[in-house]
Amino acid sequence: IHPLYAEMGTTVFERMSALARELGAVNLGQGFPDGPAPPPLLKAAQDALVERSNQYPPSGGLPELRAAIADFYTAQQGLDLEPADVVVTSGATEALACAIFGLVQPGDEVILFQPAYDAYAPLVRRAGGTPVSVPLKAPGFQYEATAIEAAVTPRTRLLVLNDPLNPSGTVASAEELGTIARICMAHDLVAICDEVWEQVRFDGQRHRSLMDMQGMAERCVKIGSAGKIFGLTGWKIGWMVARGDLAVALGRVHQFLTFTTPVPLQWAVAAGLGMTDVLDELHAAWAASRQRLGKGLEGAGFAVLPNAATWFLCIDLAASGIELDDRTFSERAVREGGVATVPVSALFEGEGAPTHLVRVCFTKPDAVVDEAVARLANWR
Amino acid sequence: IHPLYAEMGTTVFERMSALARELGAVNLGQGFPDGPAPPPLLKAAQDALVERSNQYPPSGGLPELRAAIADFYTAQQGLDLEPADVVVTSGATEALACAIFGLVQPGDEVILFQPAYDAYAPLVRRAGGTPVSVPLKAPGFQYEATAIEAAVTPRTRLLVLNDPLNPSGTVASAEELGTIARICMAHDLVAICDEVWEQVRFDGQRHRSLMDMQGMAERCVKIGSAGKIFGLTGWKIGWMVARGDLAVALGRVHQFLTFTTPVPLQWAVAAGLGMTDVLDELHAAWAASRQRLGKGLEGAGFAVLPNAATWFLCIDLAASGIELDDRTFSERAVREGGVATVPVSALFEGEGAPTHLVRVCFTKPDAVVDEAVARLANWR
Ligand SMILES: CSCCC(=O)C(=O)O
Ligand SMILES: CSCCC(=O)C(=O)O
Repeated sequence: IHPLYAEMGTTVFERMSALARELGAVNLGQGFPDGPAPPPLLKAAQDALVERSNQYPPSGGLPELRAAIADFYTAQQGLDLEPADVVVTSGATEALACAIFGLVQPGDEVILFQPAYDAYAPLVRRAGGTPVSVPLKAPGFQYEATAIEAAVTPRTRLLVLNDPLNPSGTVASAEELGTIARICMAHDLVAICDEVWEQVRFDGQRHRSLMDMQGMAERCVKIGSAGKIFGLTGWKIGWMVARGDLAVALGRVHQFLTFTTPVPLQWAVAAGLGMTDVLDELHAAWAASRQRLGKGLEGAGFAVLPNAATWFLCIDLAASGIELDDRTFSERAVREGGVATVPVSALFEGEGAPTHLVRVCFTKPDAVVDEAVARLANWR
Repeated sequence: IHPLYAEMGTTVFERMSALARELGAVNLGQGFPDGPAPPPLLKAAQDALVERSNQYPPSGGLPELRAAIADFYTAQQGLDLEPADVVVTSGATEALACAIFGLVQPGDEVILFQPAYDAYAPLVRRAGGTPVSVPLKAPGFQYEATAIEAAVTPRTRLLVLNDPLNPSGTVASAEELGTIARICMAHDLVAICDEVWEQVRFDGQRHRSLMDMQGMAERCVKIGSAGKIFGLTGWKIGWMVARGDLAVALGRVHQFLTFTTPVPLQWAVAAGLGMTDVLDELHAAWAASRQRLGKGLEGAGFAVLPNAATWFLCIDLAASGIELDDRTFSERAVREGGVATVPVSALFEGEGAPTHLVRVCFTKPDAVVDEAVARLANWR
């Protein structure tokens, strides 16, 4: 066994979901919506199963889906893309793996802002690279030029930007994106833009991609997820978007990692990306749940950080008058309180982890949200 | 771009399928069955879409599917497995990637018998290992102790066995499996057993797994594929089977490669593995197509190698009185003859590639088989 895996634990998401199942806890840990999936997407998948071929699609994805993704980004984010710039992957995690295995060479350094999805660092290590952590500070989680510049060395080749940011639910400002773009260009870095939360913005705001900043179109790998866009995390359709040669090269990595991605679900996602009513309805439902959980938690005496995006709120334990650290709180909340959460420090490598923040997922039916609030109120 | 991918071409399967689409050729190249998929599996997937959660299943796979796979191997191959020995992956290619990234460390040597699935060598290289080719000789493609022993060095850690063997359609005898097992034990090697063709044996023979040989249960990673078992290559449900700690470690690799695999299709495969009538019908249909294509080709003056397994026959160009090498034949067959095939040497790295064999996929409706034969007969 490669020592990386011999010493590796189970991801916090999986562990919390397993604990929730085992203990009958309300699961606000791992990020997924409960409740019914959008019927038109289910119908599209059912139809594709009987009306379309169930054999290998092209390795880079169905042409119809690649075109739908390119069109979607043109409409939503003003990006100028060709279908050939898109490679469909088996979820955004595979897209990350493709980008990292395709771009990192032994000895390269990769800047990972913290907190971070816990797949980034192991993938960088397995690719032979060295993750370099740049901690972001709660509650704003801002990107600061001096901190980033200080992390750049002659070996730095890449940075990974997760914007909007999970677990904090914060979003980089246009000025911060400009700073990151400037640093990428000054040091000839490629940016892997994990933008899986791009469509989950609230308060009438639209996502701005790092790829849209001056000079960045050629040095970005933008990663997206149908699981997040449609709240169908069990479908595992993701993609990466990059220009020209870069997309071709990343397609080569994909060709020998999963080769291709389930074709009936590709058809359904291709159809879904054109269903603006479905997207609007989902968005409205998530916005309502966000408000319901926020209000409920505040009513129960929990302080909640401002949220601009994602399916997550962060409870500020310190500001709530709770003296437990986040890991202890999460462990006890699931066992004693009957509610699974994610401690933010579990998504943090290196110095500077906040230990007073706990993440809760709000994309749940009202009854689930209310039950979670009642349990937490009762237990605290 | 990592130099491995910068210099890599498109896999022959993808290239041939694209050419076939472009030119309107009959596609006997990439391995997949045409024609209707098994209705009970499609129905099971349709039902799962509306009756089950579409959110993340456990990373290692639905418990029901892991149990179904363990039971299936007990019934079909007499293996003694627990559900915990199974990790469900996004196709067999991801299972190979997990096994190779999990087991190969920089400097390790990995024995790859040739011909080989063209994903093996790039994955070994990306993992930091060195592929060591052991050529098998047409027409028997036998495993010879002296040739294998000669390839083993103190750095050898793994071998990859594809049995039944694609593209040849040959099967290792019990004696050859014994030889391979003995070598693995003598040199402390782990075997990655790519047994995706295990259920596609003909002439009343059953598959015997290397994992079933004395002393091998603990040193095998056995890889299987629902795509091959059910002829649903576009579903991308595969798995790896290994004992205890090894399965746990390989699950860690999977957790950060695709995390999990589409859940509606997992439900359908779990149901399908218990449908012996479906399996029998598929098998009978494939056996009939195999005979039809074989007879048709022979009738048109092509010599065909004996076939024991897989969806493929090999045309022996030399014995057919055709002086073209396999790549030239394939290129001209698709462009001039209107039939896509796969040259066997495209699946061969290192010395000793046969250049007189061309692979054709027979799992097609009768009309497609007949049309392909007519075109080839007419063209040659
Ligand atoms: C792949 S499990 C993690 C899901 C997720 O994005 C989250 O919960 O943050
Ligand atoms: C992943 S494409 C290759 C499919 C296959 O197994 C074959 O055609 O040999």
